[in-house]
Amino acid sequence: MKRYEALADSIAASIRADVLRPGDRLPSVRHASESRKVSPATVFKAYYLLESWGLVRALARSGYFVLPQPTIMPPAWSAPAPQEGGLPLQVSDRVFDVLGTTMRRDVVPLGSAFPSPELFPLARLGRVLASSVQRLDPWTSVDDLSAGNARLRRNIALRYLAYGLHVHTDEIVITNGALEALNLCLMAVAHPGDAVVVESPTFYGALQALERLGLRAIEVATHPGEGIDLGALARVLEQHRPAACWLMTNFQNPLGSLMPDAKKQALVELLAAHDVPLIEDDVYGELYFGSTRPAAAKAFDRKGLVMHCSSFSKCLAPGYRVGWVAPGRFTERVARHKLTMSLSASAPAQAALAEYLEKGAYDKHLRQLRQALVAQQRQMIDAVVRYFPRGTRATRPDGGYFLWVELPPTVDALAMLEMSLSQGISVAPGPIFTSQDRFRHFLRLNYGHPWDARLDAAMATLGRIASAYA
Amino acid sequence: MKRYEALADSIAASIRADVLRPGDRLPSVRHASESRKVSPATVFKAYYLLESWGLVRALARSGYFVLPQPTIMPPAWSAPAPQEGGLPLQVSDRVFDVLGTTMRRDVVPLGSAFPSPELFPLARLGRVLASSVQRLDPWTSVDDLSAGNARLRRNIALRYLAYGLHVHTDEIVITNGALEALNLCLMAVAHPGDAVVVESPTFYGALQALERLGLRAIEVATHPGEGIDLGALARVLEQHRPAACWLMTNFQNPLGSLMPDAKKQALVELLAAHDVPLIEDDVYGELYFGSTRPAAAKAFDRKGLVMHCSSFSKCLAPGYRVGWVAPGRFTERVARHKLTMSLSASAPAQAALAEYLEKGAYDKHLRQLRQALVAQQRQMIDAVVRYFPRGTRATRPDGGYFLWVELPPTVDALAMLEMSLSQGISVAPGPIFTSQDRFRHFLRLNYGHPWDARLDAAMATLGRIASAYA
Repeated sequence: MKRYEALADSIAASIRADVLRPGDRLPSVRHASESRKVSPATVFKAYYLLESWGLVRALARSGYFVLPQPTIMPPAWSAPAPQEGGLPLQVSDRVFDVLGTTMRRDVVPLGSAFPSPELFPLARLGRVLASSVQRLDPWTSVDDLSAGNARLRRNIALRYLAYGLHVHTDEIVITNGALEALNLCLMAVAHPGDAVVVESPTFYGALQALERLGLRAIEVATHPGEGIDLGALARVLEQHRPAACWLMTNFQNPLGSLMPDAKKQALVELLAAHDVPLIEDDVYGELYFGSTRPAAAKAFDRKGLVMHCSSFSKCLAPGYRVGWVAPGRFTERVARHKLTMSLSASAPAQAALAEYLEKGAYDKHLRQLRQALVAQQRQMIDAVVRYFPRGTRATRPDGGYFLWVELPPTVDALAMLEMSLSQGISVAPGPIFTSQDRFRHFLRLNYGHPWDARLDAAMATLGRIASAYA
Repeated sequence: MKRYEALADSIAASIRADVLRPGDRLPSVRHASESRKVSPATVFKAYYLLESWGLVRALARSGYFVLPQPTIMPPAWSAPAPQEGGLPLQVSDRVFDVLGTTMRRDVVPLGSAFPSPELFPLARLGRVLASSVQRLDPWTSVDDLSAGNARLRRNIALRYLAYGLHVHTDEIVITNGALEALNLCLMAVAHPGDAVVVESPTFYGALQALERLGLRAIEVATHPGEGIDLGALARVLEQHRPAACWLMTNFQNPLGSLMPDAKKQALVELLAAHDVPLIEDDVYGELYFGSTRPAAAKAFDRKGLVMHCSSFSKCLAPGYRVGWVAPGRFTERVARHKLTMSLSASAPAQAALAEYLEKGAYDKHLRQLRQALVAQQRQMIDAVVRYFPRGTRATRPDGGYFLWVELPPTVDALAMLEMSLSQGISVAPGPIFTSQDRFRHFLRLNYGHPWDARLDAAMATLGRIASAYA
């Protein structure tokens, strides 16, 4: 990490911790340069970075001022904790009812699970695909027992290496998106009737997968800032002997929480002590707003218990449906399940992604994507501050493209969805992220779309609807 | 069906029924024209078709003679019947041990599950993919709740219609190959601990799927000519109340059996009487050697109990991994399982296949492919007759690209695999097609590869190995 990045990170932490508050002026460049013992140029660059993150704004001849941040939500465990019993699931109907209504293209996609495809280099990727398919060795199409395109797996291993994780190419199994990877991991370590730990709130896809496989979900309280409550998790491990944990360590969906590295290490050690596998869903890890990619829990794995799942669907090529998993000691089992479930991922898509990665354009694209998301998050937070009723609180995640919004307790998110759909706006209501009766007055909003007047108007409409209930 | 095709079919039936025998001369054109009351041109075309099917050969100035056919195997139910108890499965290790050894590219692929990619128009398909990906609507990539590319589903529905099956576009769910479709169907109708009927011998992928999902397999005796024994099936339905049947009605893998239409109807009615869903694996249906595509059992379905699965993997584009299912009354359940399992199939591959189908080139390709397979089957049967020990019997399927070979009972197919691999030749030994102790002296051989000296030499080697045991 460069000096100016470290300085920016430390000031950002002060803002998030409410030490520096909205309206506060940052120290002058000369002052900061002296007190921090860095050059004025370093301070300039740090302030510029903070501005790009949407945390401060420069006012002509007055210096840099901290911008309003919505109140960070209190820890989830100050709210009523989820039941830890591990209930059989019946969530899919509810989730499908909701999602079915939000897929219409004419609807403002605040409830969508994907960022705008306009943020992806799909035209360029299409050209790479067009050229690589002409060179595709026909015999790769019948290599029906491999774990995926060898070049693609090598390039994924190189990306792991670039952020300090040693994953052997042979450990990587290519799948039909991360969703299949996660499902295969579940099948590899859990049997019907077993209990599996998930976060609360959690990605609805996890609940649906558990339901389909006849597994029970144990929801564990999860902090909007730092992720799952390790104390509660330890209790659950003792009392319920779950077969696995399915967690999102980086920019959790829907919270946006980012588990600090030390906590990841503690998590991995806790699970290792109980010999419980961790299915790590890390599909948002590349969408960090800080200066370096956050670690994966897998980085701390000593026993091969962490199965690290990710994909290109949230960052580059959603429709290509290419994901992967590095399943540690479960590699052979997962690879076999993949072969017997769907054989392999689409060969042309794999070859195109391998070639795209080799051309070295991915990191540049990711930088642009992150910048766009930072700006869009800022816009959406501003809109929440401007339009939503008093008592609204929202997260300000350090990555990803979801805002988790707590409305006044009198607001019913499911009713609000109905109202907003009638106005041509989708939202993701809190209740689809749990199997229990929780998060009734919460929404997940997607800021993965370039900001425009339509989005601004939609946020104003949502604010009016919420205010009517509040 | 045209007149000459009907004539050819009826003569072919006589050959298969051993009424016309190897060496027999077909009636002269004039004689046949008079006795069948058709024009001489029609007889000529029929004989020409029979020759293209490898059933007869023209000798200059002497007429057409029936070629040697290996003895068709006796009905499987004259052999010891499989146990019908429904055993928990542990087949995957055995199957993977075998398949792992047969995937090397330097090996003559007689044990392979795919035809040669050289028989597919992969270059043309690549050009279609290259051009269609440039026009791909970016938003299709985030249509995350659809059942697949709308154009592709419409074109599949049109193909159903062309062979007389009315399947609504909305019933079609696109999957990651037929294998995923079959797995999703199983998940939709069977729960852990349930019993599922499969053929004996059966596609090893069915056994692996059942094992992964904690289901029990009931193997039912299956005839190399006409498919599953309906009497045995009726008994199993009464006694074991299975949750589903997973059958291949057309050119079954590994037998190559083709269930006659009347038997398909009886099968569907039998299952309907017990309200048992049929998972119909019809991936080889397009590879018929007769003049018309055989019906699907789904054509006789009145209660929505037949889930018809197929794909482009055996006929056009194995590596693209695009299949589908028309799941009847289980459509919503299967579509939801697909969404929660892997979201969708690769968008560029789906768009390319839709465009390829619209261009109308598929049927021409299929005609060429079938002609190639007919000729290759002829070559391989000739090689069995020439090289394999006395007492060998083989099927002569009316479609597909597998020969099921019964060797003298002293031959151990697994030992033979080891020997043949040491000579650089793979075979698929009988025991991987059952969970029981059956088919020890059987082999499945793949004739999906253009015949050449290497294949001929490999068959000679296999013959020597088998003779050493016999």
